[in-house]
Amino acid sequence: MTLQARVFFALGSRLPCGLAPRRFFSYGTKIYSTNTEALQSKFFPPLQKAMHHLIVTQCVIASRKMDVLKATAEQISSQTGNKVHAIQCDVRDPDMVQNTVSELIKVAGHPNIVINNAAGNFISPTERLSPNAWKTITDIVLNGTAFVTLEIGKQLIKAQKGMFICFSRIYLTLMCARFCAKSLAAEWGKYGMRFNVIQPGPIKTKGAFSRLDPTGTFEKEMIDRIPCGRLGTIEELANLAAFLCSDYASWINGAVSIVYFSSLFFSGEDVRNIAKS
Amino acid sequence: MTLQARVFFALGSRLPCGLAPRRFFSYGTKIYSTNTEALQSKFFPPLQKAMHHLIVTQCVIASRKMDVLKATAEQISSQTGNKVHAIQCDVRDPDMVQNTVSELIKVAGHPNIVINNAAGNFISPTERLSPNAWKTITDIVLNGTAFVTLEIGKQLIKAQKGMFICFSRIYLTLMCARFCAKSLAAEWGKYGMRFNVIQPGPIKTKGAFSRLDPTGTFEKEMIDRIPCGRLGTIEELANLAAFLCSDYASWINGAVSIVYFSSLFFSGEDVRNIAKS
Amino acid sequence: MTLQARVFFALGSRLPCGLAPRRFFSYGTKIYSTNTEALQSKFFPPLQKAMHHLIVTQCVIASRKMDVLKATAEQISSQTGNKVHAIQCDVRDPDMVQNTVSELIKVAGHPNIVINNAAGNFISPTERLSPNAWKTITDIVLNGTAFVTLEIGKQLIKAQKGMFICFSRIYLTLMCARFCAKSLAAEWGKYGMRFNVIQPGPIKTKGAFSRLDPTGTFEKEMIDRIPCGRLGTIEELANLAAFLCSDYASWINGAVSIVYFSSLFFSGEDVRNIAKS
Amino acid sequence: MTLQARVFFALGSRLPCGLAPRRFFSYGTKIYSTNTEALQSKFFPPLQKAMHHLIVTQCVIASRKMDVLKATAEQISSQTGNKVHAIQCDVRDPDMVQNTVSELIKVAGHPNIVINNAAGNFISPTERLSPNAWKTITDIVLNGTAFVTLEIGKQLIKAQKGMFICFSRIYLTLMCARFCAKSLAAEWGKYGMRFNVIQPGPIKTKGAFSRLDPTGTFEKEMIDRIPCGRLGTIEELANLAAFLCSDYASWINGAVSIVYFSSLFFSGEDVRNIAKS
Repeated sequence: MTLQARVFFALGSRLPCGLAPRRFFSYGTKIYSTNTEALQSKFFPPLQKAMHHLIVTQCVIASRKMDVLKATAEQISSQTGNKVHAIQCDVRDPDMVQNTVSELIKVAGHPNIVINNAAGNFISPTERLSPNAWKTITDIVLNGTAFVTLEIGKQLIKAQKGMFICFSRIYLTLMCARFCAKSLAAEWGKYGMRFNVIQPGPIKTKGAFSRLDPTGTFEKEMIDRIPCGRLGTIEELANLAAFLCSDYASWINGAVSIVYFSSLFFSGEDVRNIAKS
Repeated sequence: MTLQARVFFALGSRLPCGLAPRRFFSYGTKIYSTNTEALQSKFFPPLQKAMHHLIVTQCVIASRKMDVLKATAEQISSQTGNKVHAIQCDVRDPDMVQNTVSELIKVAGHPNIVINNAAGNFISPTERLSPNAWKTITDIVLNGTAFVTLEIGKQLIKAQKGMFICFSRIYLTLMCARFCAKSLAAEWGKYGMRFNVIQPGPIKTKGAFSRLDPTGTFEKEMIDRIPCGRLGTIEELANLAAFLCSDYASWINGAVSIVYFSSLFFSGEDVRNIAKS
Repeated sequence: MTLQARVFFALGSRLPCGLAPRRFFSYGTKIYSTNTEALQSKFFPPLQKAMHHLIVTQCVIASRKMDVLKATAEQISSQTGNKVHAIQCDVRDPDMVQNTVSELIKVAGHPNIVINNAAGNFISPTERLSPNAWKTITDIVLNGTAFVTLEIGKQLIKAQKGMFICFSRIYLTLMCARFCAKSLAAEWGKYGMRFNVIQPGPIKTKGAFSRLDPTGTFEKEMIDRIPCGRLGTIEELANLAAFLCSDYASWINGAVSIVYFSSLFFSGEDVRNIAKS
Repeated sequence: MTLQARVFFALGSRLPCGLAPRRFFSYGTKIYSTNTEALQSKFFPPLQKAMHHLIVTQCVIASRKMDVLKATAEQISSQTGNKVHAIQCDVRDPDMVQNTVSELIKVAGHPNIVINNAAGNFISPTERLSPNAWKTITDIVLNGTAFVTLEIGKQLIKAQKGMFICFSRIYLTLMCARFCAKSLAAEWGKYGMRFNVIQPGPIKTKGAFSRLDPTGTFEKEMIDRIPCGRLGTIEELANLAAFLCSDYASWINGAVSIVYFSSLFFSGEDVRNIAKS
């Protein structure tokens, strides 16, 4: 896969425990299927090798907490041998976003790939949600994403290029991401920019489910509804992101990739239940 | 990209002028972007080489017209060095479909990848459409696709594997393809099968538009609505199909990939029009 | 509500046990809420009276089985005092459809309202579905609906009017109904015709569930996913149909009314499960 | 139509020029079709009379500008003979929202119907949008709607009733409204509450288009895409809202009514263009 990227800018308040850029570079050697042993032996060596070289020459990552950022930057560097710049940025603050984008361009040039992974989760009965909790989420997830996209977008219009990927795991953000991808693809496609959204479905990450779902009931129900019969992995998301950012996907613009089968109709699932019995 | 396929079965009444399997294997050397020269030089050689080797060892193609099938089979063989079997099959006839699948398995074993590309186009004011014209389309597009998928599916349940791609260009078939992908992913996912749909958007093929749209007005309007500002190419579809069939997409099941930005909301487009003025 | 209809044409192979036209006229006096007693007392008398008078002056019904048709016709007549014509018609036969439409116009004039309720159900693991079973369903549901709509549509183009409602309960037909409603609204809207689809969700009818779901497990699961916490009633569908056919909805064209909350996102439902615990 | 409402609470920053509650009560006597004369004569008198009596006994309206609110309150009172309370409220301020809801319940009791019509429009190329402009919109449209819905919802959980209608005209708000309707219907349906969304499509209002579209080009293009061949009217929206709030729609919960045919597929429209030629 050809990423062709010179500069890669990743944004995410939860980089280390979520979809961290380091995974993005190492997917070739990681397990990417349930049946690892069988596949490894069949894996075509030239391709496997090529994957290691598909390397972004410079990577800039931004997030709110400096210590987390630094640890992530070192991890990526040690795994890829690439320089990684870390910039502290609270995406809720437009001025801080503007400074971050200036610094990004100063240290690394205009980015080829921009990954939006800003997230704020809440799984709570709505009636217990306070106005402040709601506002914090929309500030991070909606306003933050908009501020970064608008600021970098304005710079990339001049550069006439740029590829944006937005990961959206929760409902409200997904809706906004869809809107942004479609609107901006329609508006800024003429400048050579592409905007795509990945709706990941439930991914296996350390800690996430144990905290939100201690008994595992929720996880079991989710798995029951996933055609592949298992949670996804971070590497699988990275694979899709790599494909969408590559030149192979140069015509895919304004698309929403629903990785997970989300039973759009009550049909599929019901048929499945019946098929079981 | 790892196709990992031992046997590849492609079905389509319009193989030579549509998405022919030969393209499927040769995308690595073909133009895959608007800006060819620039990209070729940057193209990473090991990957380019790998692409040539990602080869299905056996290919079986089926369609209604034997002469067209034979010409296509020879073309694929000469380009890839692979054996290609051609089986005559009218997908509207369940018995013929059953025989085709038997022969397929006899000559090449259970297929790893099944491509459904059966198509029947009509662009006609509905009031001029006869019951017979309507019936021919549903017989090919709906019943044909269902017969092939059910018959191969039943065989692959025993083999516990299989990847189906369905190309759906027109409205009615797309709806059915979505239904099938979601239902079958939910039902047969447990057997290790995957079902994905590609909704291509307008693709540049020889003849297609000159026949349906002699003045080019329709094409101009379409291009106006595509964020990338141009029609897609067959290679771009092949890229996406290759990705979806590969192990990199092993968790993507029941998905509909809308390659083309189809203005889900009247918004995107309108904003674009206003942005122009 | 003003139906304003002079002639009403209803088509459905399962009129008596499904959404029969007789229900269509009597919704005003039927239970239309879970909390009947409370509502009846509050019910505004002039409106209640008006409902009884909103009467189609002539009703033509068509279906395959003559004995069932006759019984239904008598039932409607006795309840409404209106004339009801019954015409035997197998919608799979284009010639029979043409004759039915001719007779309809001869006995009653051009219809103001056309209800498509042709249905063929299958709840079966796909792997046990035979090509013939599949073909019977598409013949009734797709081809039948298309033949009737095309034939009446051609006649109504001359009359410059007409309102079509299509009930679509199962997945494949729904997809087709959506396609038809949108395409035909776009094409024939200029002739003053309207095309709307109702996707009912699970409705309580005698026999339906006892046959398909003897243990009631499926019904319980469905109810769990319906925000109102209960199955719908035939009268509730009739209410919506009456609204969509009335002049109050004169601008609603090409719409799909999803009566039932079908959990478009895995969110809603999951949140609900969590809210329970 | 039975609104059955004792208290009606309408919220909207642009009540007078947008969908004002006064229209909500008077739709029965207003033009509700393109062909007025013909219809009036056919209009069934008892129903017409009933419509005038379907009256909310108390109406509370809230918005940011007190002078506009007062003028609207007087207009509604003079047309309906009902008491109208006006409460000044900036929906961006959670404390002000809490006070408004307290006052609403104090003066009129728990509302039966809640109309969310808060809006903030922008039609601007995205590259010219400032962070502040973006934030103002999300503050009004997202946070404001959320604050009001959460606050009233918490009160209505105790009252075990309530019907919410959300009008969403622009893209981002529509996405959020969909999310809210589906999530809250799933969560709060058990308390007897219903949440539905109306996506109106282009409606003819004084001033709106003359300001945003002085040359009328945009309006012409929109009309071209509407099956009925004309813009909608405020009364038509009121009709749909009245239906959804009535007991006739007691099972419709979590639904999104797309009044306007928004060409989900590029099909409908294209077919139409071809049909023209």
